Amino acid sequence: MAEEITPELAELVLDAQPFSRLVRARVAVFEPGRAVLEVEVRDELLQQNGFLHGGVLSYAADNALTFAGGTVLGASVLTSGFSIEYLRPGRGSLLSARAHVLESTRRRAVCRCDLVMVDDGSERIVAAAQGTIALVG
Amino acid sequence: MAEEITPELAELVLDAQPFSRLVRARVAVFEPGRAVLEVEVRDELLQQNGFLHGGVLSYAADNALTFAGGTVLGASVLTSGFSIEYLRPGRGSLLSARAHVLESTRRRAVCRCDLVMVDDGSERIVAAAQGTIALVG
Amino acid sequence: MAEEITPELAELVLDAQPFSRLVRARVAVFEPGRAVLEVEVRDELLQQNGFLHGGVLSYAADNALTFAGGTVLGASVLTSGFSIEYLRPGRGSLLSARAHVLESTRRRAVCRCDLVMVDDGSERIVAAAQGTIALVG
Amino acid sequence: MAEEITPELAELVLDAQPFSRLVRARVAVFEPGRAVLEVEVRDELLQQNGFLHGGVLSYAADNALTFAGGTVLGASVLTSGFSIEYLRPGRGSLLSARAHVLESTRRRAVCRCDLVMVDDGSERIVAAAQGTIALVG
Repeated sequence: MAEEITPELAELVLDAQPFSRLVRARVAVFEPGRAVLEVEVRDELLQQNGFLHGGVLSYAADNALTFAGGTVLGASVLTSGFSIEYLRPGRGSLLSARAHVLESTRRRAVCRCDLVMVDDGSERIVAAAQGTIALVG
Repeated sequence: MAEEITPELAELVLDAQPFSRLVRARVAVFEPGRAVLEVEVRDELLQQNGFLHGGVLSYAADNALTFAGGTVLGASVLTSGFSIEYLRPGRGSLLSARAHVLESTRRRAVCRCDLVMVDDGSERIVAAAQGTIALVG
Repeated sequence: MAEEITPELAELVLDAQPFSRLVRARVAVFEPGRAVLEVEVRDELLQQNGFLHGGVLSYAADNALTFAGGTVLGASVLTSGFSIEYLRPGRGSLLSARAHVLESTRRRAVCRCDLVMVDDGSERIVAAAQGTIALVG
Repeated sequence: MAEEITPELAELVLDAQPFSRLVRARVAVFEPGRAVLEVEVRDELLQQNGFLHGGVLSYAADNALTFAGGTVLGASVLTSGFSIEYLRPGRGSLLSARAHVLESTRRRAVCRCDLVMVDDGSERIVAAAQGTIALVG
């Protein structure tokens, strides 16, 4: 990412990730301290019981955490690690991964992400993530 | 999963997950206390710098942990939550997600997973995961 | 904990934990969806560089998460697991572990906890935790 | 810690932590890639049901992970973050927190810790932790 990151630039970064294109994630919000990634649910993203696969949730959490960290740390960041707690099956037509920076230093940001399933306007948190984003190098 | 799970059955379960087919994961090992999932690296699975996307690592960790838990808890299991620590960029031609059950009770199993990148026979751990798998219902 | 838990009862539960008495933790807030534990910093709780020991932070996070879960799940709860990210050394005269329930089902609650160091009225988040609290039995 | 850390030096470091003295932890093993901390169970360390308090387990996990990381990273290390999964109540007369380095780079080590309760020679894993230890500065 470049030092000054705009939502358009964030979308370009996401689009430069082949795996994000495979999942078809998009940047919905990208502003200081906050990033939201969205994924429309389609058959390819499900698990054997018809719910959104946990791997899609963890992918989205990971990426949204990194993008949120990027809004304050800028440029070159990576996820050191994160944890995710699953609470409910992922039902709905849209996954909204809403991440924010809880607190940051010059080199690291602790971020949290709510994994929200949206369906016909109703919303429900189905999982929650937290992780540390670090400046590279 | 059925009560008595064979490697063949595990492969069928994985194949019944559309997202696992999208990623093209396969079951390499499935035996009491241990499960290994493998994913061949291809362009679609990369991030913007040419490394395996973290989301593929977290997908594989999540699923391998669940499968490992399934080897001892049988039938209906899900991942309550897990954490993953990234240590190095994912370089190589094959991702091998090697999970094992550390300890279990009748209803829960604590499992760990080494995320190993394989390239020309050499291997390197690039990330590590740990989580709790629980019996459903 | 009893089904209907008042702040007074929560304080009694905390006081019935010998380790919490050793640390000298107290319940500062206990209301639906939220629990705050406080620990006054004293020499016994430090590490070798004069900061609050990480173990005190993880103790407080663990307990505050459990108490927060208890505000919605009532009675018999335990922490299934949690993760904690450290951001800064723990400096200050008071640790305030502020936990809330992000989302819950009948049997489980995903909770988060901000670990805040207070000093002369100024506050700073030094660590962050997240975990799952479950009904026992 | 000094660059070349001996078990004796590790014990001195632990003893320089007032909170570790309060808990009465000791270094049982300290060798390249591995560190074991032990805590004898006594009334002061229990929770309200007579089991070892989760906070003692998380303290021991945190510290053992850091010490294990210190065996390979040397000198100045700290825990970036860790996660812990609880599987059983902590029953027994001795807690043995057995940590090892799974993999490390020059600046970071991913470590795991088995939390084992020992009683009359029998042993049982009651919790498991994993975290990242980083070089300071």
